[in-house]
Amino acid sequence: MSAIAALIADLDGIKIEDNPQIVKQKSRDFFWYSPVLKAQLENVTGDLIVTPKSEDEVIRILKACFAADVPVTTRGAGTGNYGQAMPLSGGVVLSLADMTAVKEVRTGSVVAEAGAIMADIDAATRAETGQELRMHPSTYRTATIGGFIAGGSGGVGSINWGGLRDLGNVIRLRVVTMEAEPQVLEMTGDELQKVMHAYGTNGIITEVEMPLTASYDWVDVLVGFDDFMDAVRFSDELANLDGLLTKNIAPVAAPVPHDYFLRHQKFIRKDQSVAVLMVAPFAMAAFDAFMGRQSKGEVLYRSDKASDEDLKRLPPAYELSWNHTTLRALRVDPSITYLQVLYPFPNQVELVGKMHEMFGNEVPGHLEYVRFDGNVTCFGLPIVRYSNEARLEEIIRLHEDNGCPIFNPHRYTLEEGGMKQTDAVQLAFKKQADPKGLLNPGKMIAWENPDYDFESGQVFLFPGLQRA
Amino acid sequence: MSAIAALIADLDGIKIEDNPQIVKQKSRDFFWYSPVLKAQLENVTGDLIVTPKSEDEVIRILKACFAADVPVTTRGAGTGNYGQAMPLSGGVVLSLADMTAVKEVRTGSVVAEAGAIMADIDAATRAETGQELRMHPSTYRTATIGGFIAGGSGGVGSINWGGLRDLGNVIRLRVVTMEAEPQVLEMTGDELQKVMHAYGTNGIITEVEMPLTASYDWVDVLVGFDDFMDAVRFSDELANLDGLLTKNIAPVAAPVPHDYFLRHQKFIRKDQSVAVLMVAPFAMAAFDAFMGRQSKGEVLYRSDKASDEDLKRLPPAYELSWNHTTLRALRVDPSITYLQVLYPFPNQVELVGKMHEMFGNEVPGHLEYVRFDGNVTCFGLPIVRYSNEARLEEIIRLHEDNGCPIFNPHRYTLEEGGMKQTDAVQLAFKKQADPKGLLNPGKMIAWENPDYDFESGQVFLFPGLQRA
Repeated sequence: MSAIAALIADLDGIKIEDNPQIVKQKSRDFFWYSPVLKAQLENVTGDLIVTPKSEDEVIRILKACFAADVPVTTRGAGTGNYGQAMPLSGGVVLSLADMTAVKEVRTGSVVAEAGAIMADIDAATRAETGQELRMHPSTYRTATIGGFIAGGSGGVGSINWGGLRDLGNVIRLRVVTMEAEPQVLEMTGDELQKVMHAYGTNGIITEVEMPLTASYDWVDVLVGFDDFMDAVRFSDELANLDGLLTKNIAPVAAPVPHDYFLRHQKFIRKDQSVAVLMVAPFAMAAFDAFMGRQSKGEVLYRSDKASDEDLKRLPPAYELSWNHTTLRALRVDPSITYLQVLYPFPNQVELVGKMHEMFGNEVPGHLEYVRFDGNVTCFGLPIVRYSNEARLEEIIRLHEDNGCPIFNPHRYTLEEGGMKQTDAVQLAFKKQADPKGLLNPGKMIAWENPDYDFESGQVFLFPGLQRA
Repeated sequence: MSAIAALIADLDGIKIEDNPQIVKQKSRDFFWYSPVLKAQLENVTGDLIVTPKSEDEVIRILKACFAADVPVTTRGAGTGNYGQAMPLSGGVVLSLADMTAVKEVRTGSVVAEAGAIMADIDAATRAETGQELRMHPSTYRTATIGGFIAGGSGGVGSINWGGLRDLGNVIRLRVVTMEAEPQVLEMTGDELQKVMHAYGTNGIITEVEMPLTASYDWVDVLVGFDDFMDAVRFSDELANLDGLLTKNIAPVAAPVPHDYFLRHQKFIRKDQSVAVLMVAPFAMAAFDAFMGRQSKGEVLYRSDKASDEDLKRLPPAYELSWNHTTLRALRVDPSITYLQVLYPFPNQVELVGKMHEMFGNEVPGHLEYVRFDGNVTCFGLPIVRYSNEARLEEIIRLHEDNGCPIFNPHRYTLEEGGMKQTDAVQLAFKKQADPKGLLNPGKMIAWENPDYDFESGQVFLFPGLQRA
């Protein structure tokens, strides 16, 4: 009997899927946003999808896989973009999709199982207490809270609260280790850094406690501009108004809004750049006053004055922003891709202008305003009209040479997509919590190859993937 | 029959006080914080205190006073510090203390009469909806919301929301004009600037609509430091943590905390500088992690671990901050006074250090962290060990010469306490809304003397006050 067959027998009573078509489909995430990852990861698949209903079942699965030396790659809804939930060495794909309980709603925080979908958490906390999560990705309606913590960084709401990495944006995590006898650890404060944004390489998050903030019926607003840089200056000014509460501010360069926001197309001229906004309903009088101070900028759409028909038909503004901007572009033009850029404070507007001038319509701008270390600045998720990998690398280099760091979304390892250096805290915890290296193999270079030279200019290629 | 006697007859049915002792007492505010104002305003008194119960009564009073050419100076609780509610020309002191209704609590906003006390508003909004006002002065338990808007600028909560002047921090005001037939105006957006922080010189605010935010049982924390500048750096770092929710951050230099925070004295050594904090309860694990990263700083007190006896005995942290720091110092040493300083971003820590080194214990530091135009920086309300007016002026000049603007709390006019220039919007509205110049005479220089030279180096002296 093969190791996998033995494992299936061992996990009797737990939900298991072994149909190869379904397993392959559930082994994928949104890696295909990147033509580079698409070529590398196209054939990746696990052997089984195992879907526990409880932490006890998670422990049983990890214990069995540890004994059988079977790799375990954990996923929530698979909405990541870097192949972070894809099983490079096969084995078990551990889906937390059935662990969805919202366990306790408190004043200022919520306790939920890791597989709870963020929109479902908010539906529960809104109904009970008028609260909602501080931030969420544009995949709010499908992504899980555990997946966001393990593989995300911030999103809608980061204009008020910064990123997930910031102290206070995650309160507590329960984590199961990959040992002969898996341990259940409770982490708070600085310990959280061990497992946050570690792609499940060093422990399985089963339960989260997240801070909540006041919930509102946010008003979606689109403001049109003839010039992208006017949209940027408008957004920068709005983001710096301390008393005017917004949840998202995203300027997007023409012709992206017209060409790719298909359901909003009737509101937008082809040559219009658009600031996509979410504004607190009780701030709309202040917003009107702010608009009144502008000589440029025209309100194209606002959901508080929209027809019932439009409200039914149109996606929410957060599904025009963050990686949904890219997704909408890909649906129309599958040849495009994107980058992730930081424009450091206080020179963000100037740097955006420089890149916009340098690349024009080859790299149409898309910014997301955020708080970053106490300052207001912007990330970029520009669309890239992809020609070839060499030019993509050149575009990255030109950004970095001009002081705009790139978080490369065309790499599947933690380090290459992030800080390009070993995360000593995560590595140390992996040594303790996953001594056999069975959790999500191939994603943490520091584990796979402790001597790896991040300055080599090469792309790390996981040997296990070469085999695949 | 004198004009005042005729007025009393005319206002039959409205609450009127004419006992000279009580009228004098109710004609005063906290002007005596300033030895300069104390000398100037000591003898100021109105002729009557008139206390309407409704906007209709306000209209009746204004109509009668307009007809009789009697000045009207409006006050809430009289907790201001600049004589802003003191009747320099006598006449009617219009007290809004009986207009206290909290009329409507909505998601994100509250409608209240102008005389409602801020703590009472919060008690209502907390009980009904788990919301509270965004910001309040340290006189939260006694000050009215209308007085705060007409005479305040910010306070506890400004670390998150900026100041009252910032778009969105006041939603709507109802204002009654001083005309033969008083008008009732509703103002929103940029119109609000006409009457906010105008000391009631150009209209009477009768009703307010204010934004609300989520309410929490804030944890009071005192952190002690051997060196004031370590307390400042700690506070600056904390204020820049986007995910760690606080409501107030106030570093105070030794020996002020030990010598003047008498009820907290047992927690504080004489040579300790203290950061006075309000932290969200669900952020305390993150706060502990932040403390763990410090090599300096020792938690002296936290209300979430305090004994019942201490909780009963101790004032809340906000009554150690903003102008309550000054008040506590004055109770121990009536000879001290204070200043109001802005330390502009991004050089706030360096500028504070420079002033601290220059003045030492003559001007012990007291900072309040705030958001200001999108950035985190600090205001100062330093204690000044007062010797004479010339030295006070010199201390002011030395601050300004070093790039630290002073908002002079030793002046009773709008302009001298503020931007030292005509506020054209307020002046234009006064011409329309108070054509006879009967509202709070002597406070708006631009009205009293349109040709006044703000660069003269002289102190404006209202002729009406000379007479008094």
